[in-house]
Amino acid sequence: MEKESIARIFRNIQDHICNALVKADGFGEFVQDRWERPGGGGGISRVMRHGNIIEKGGVNFSEVYGKTPENILKTFGLEDGEFYATGVSIVLHPENPMVPIIHMNIRYFEMSTGTFWFGGGIDLTPHYIDREDAHFFHSKLKAVCDKHHPTYYIEFKHWADDYFHIKHRNETRGIGGIFFDHLGADDEFSKEDRLEFVKDVGLSFAPIYTHFMNKNAKMPYGQRQKEWQMLRRGRYVEFNLVYDRGTKFGLETNGRVESILMSLPSEAGWEYDYTPPKGSAEAQTLASLKKGVNWI
Amino acid sequence: MEKESIARIFRNIQDHICNALVKADGFGEFVQDRWERPGGGGGISRVMRHGNIIEKGGVNFSEVYGKTPENILKTFGLEDGEFYATGVSIVLHPENPMVPIIHMNIRYFEMSTGTFWFGGGIDLTPHYIDREDAHFFHSKLKAVCDKHHPTYYIEFKHWADDYFHIKHRNETRGIGGIFFDHLGADDEFSKEDRLEFVKDVGLSFAPIYTHFMNKNAKMPYGQRQKEWQMLRRGRYVEFNLVYDRGTKFGLETNGRVESILMSLPSEAGWEYDYTPPKGSAEAQTLASLKKGVNWI
Repeated sequence: MEKESIARIFRNIQDHICNALVKADGFGEFVQDRWERPGGGGGISRVMRHGNIIEKGGVNFSEVYGKTPENILKTFGLEDGEFYATGVSIVLHPENPMVPIIHMNIRYFEMSTGTFWFGGGIDLTPHYIDREDAHFFHSKLKAVCDKHHPTYYIEFKHWADDYFHIKHRNETRGIGGIFFDHLGADDEFSKEDRLEFVKDVGLSFAPIYTHFMNKNAKMPYGQRQKEWQMLRRGRYVEFNLVYDRGTKFGLETNGRVESILMSLPSEAGWEYDYTPPKGSAEAQTLASLKKGVNWI
Repeated sequence: MEKESIARIFRNIQDHICNALVKADGFGEFVQDRWERPGGGGGISRVMRHGNIIEKGGVNFSEVYGKTPENILKTFGLEDGEFYATGVSIVLHPENPMVPIIHMNIRYFEMSTGTFWFGGGIDLTPHYIDREDAHFFHSKLKAVCDKHHPTYYIEFKHWADDYFHIKHRNETRGIGGIFFDHLGADDEFSKEDRLEFVKDVGLSFAPIYTHFMNKNAKMPYGQRQKEWQMLRRGRYVEFNLVYDRGTKFGLETNGRVESILMSLPSEAGWEYDYTPPKGSAEAQTLASLKKGVNWI
């Protein structure tokens, strides 16, 4: 499987997802920007703003290559070399606080030495955690994982718990999902096996998220729920700017800032030392933002 | 000069500043939190919210000590040792976009080996840059610096340009100010000399900022100015979470999160690929967010 074919599959997944989101939103459209990377390659950024359901959302495709950045060379103990990377990245911030924030990424990386791997993940950040929604989300991910290997889900679910963690607050970003990286070929898995899995993860995104769009976007909410949404978005910003590896890597290697920071919400808020009232829906959500919860 | 005396001076500066801000605001009051650090020491956080002029502001004092964190030991090539640190930190976010955001910090650090130094700075982030205001701000800082050494201003002004820089956007955070660190004793300066300088920096804060409060808080503004303020605050969040050393150090060493992130505004915004209209006040401000501008 040539890298160009993988990039083509990823491009198709971007289209597939955008079409499904436009249909489910019923009003918003994606605006497209093609950009070029000075060192080689480029991408297609698609942004939806002020949709019916999606307040701000980005679905990015990129295919970049060229001289390998210093920090990656170091990691591999290499002197020199070329790299190739392609991927799809999504973050959607809905208007209605009853609809969760979602993130997905699938990526393929290859070095001129021949080393290659796949990575990615999906995680859900409900402003208000609903057990049934959480069960739905994790069950769907488990089904995708189980199709490819019996231990994928449990392994990648733990990885997501560890990764999507706001250390300084000892809070998970949301209810997690799956996260995986450095999936190369070995005795057990061929390159095609890995690609099939990553492809299935990408294709699972639209049915999962449009389910929440259809089910929750009409739910009533008021000022209180909007204020809580602002604070939860503040946490999202903290995670992305302080911890997210993709964001940090992008900013450090002079990536296209607007595409990288597309993940940030239109508006976010911080309130000094805010504690939700005991027993409130907000307090219940906060209490559930822990690692190791079995949502299924 | 014992460290306890330095801490006492810093505490007095916190009081001095809070009193001046309450008077100038005319409505807002500071709410105080005393907190303890598990490893030793603690602090006094003071927060004003929903003032007449100050939408959200924090004036923090801290005095912490104990076993030196690993990363600091490493920097000094030490195996073991105790540290002591005391300081005052301020960030104020005004309601009116015509009033600038301001930050100040003064700090003293000492190791059980005897090494000590002072650090600190003040920088101003106008949502709209006004040349006269910028001139006033830098002239006042220059006067404080000149009182102590003829090269302080130019040296610390450059340091601020370099420090308060949002690298990924190649934008300065605002119009800079002064920044200095590792000011120890040497042939030229005694510990008392350094302390006197840092004290004068601390005491210059209230007259400088209340000048802007008195002068600008009644200026008219509309929706457009508020939206621009949201975007400028978004940049402020980016700087603080991605680059600010104090914030990073605090989060990494399990500092008190609410005191560290008091610097973040109540609300901030991000808009994909926003470019202000040519020739607008917003575009002029953006064009001036560069290193090396002589504001005097």
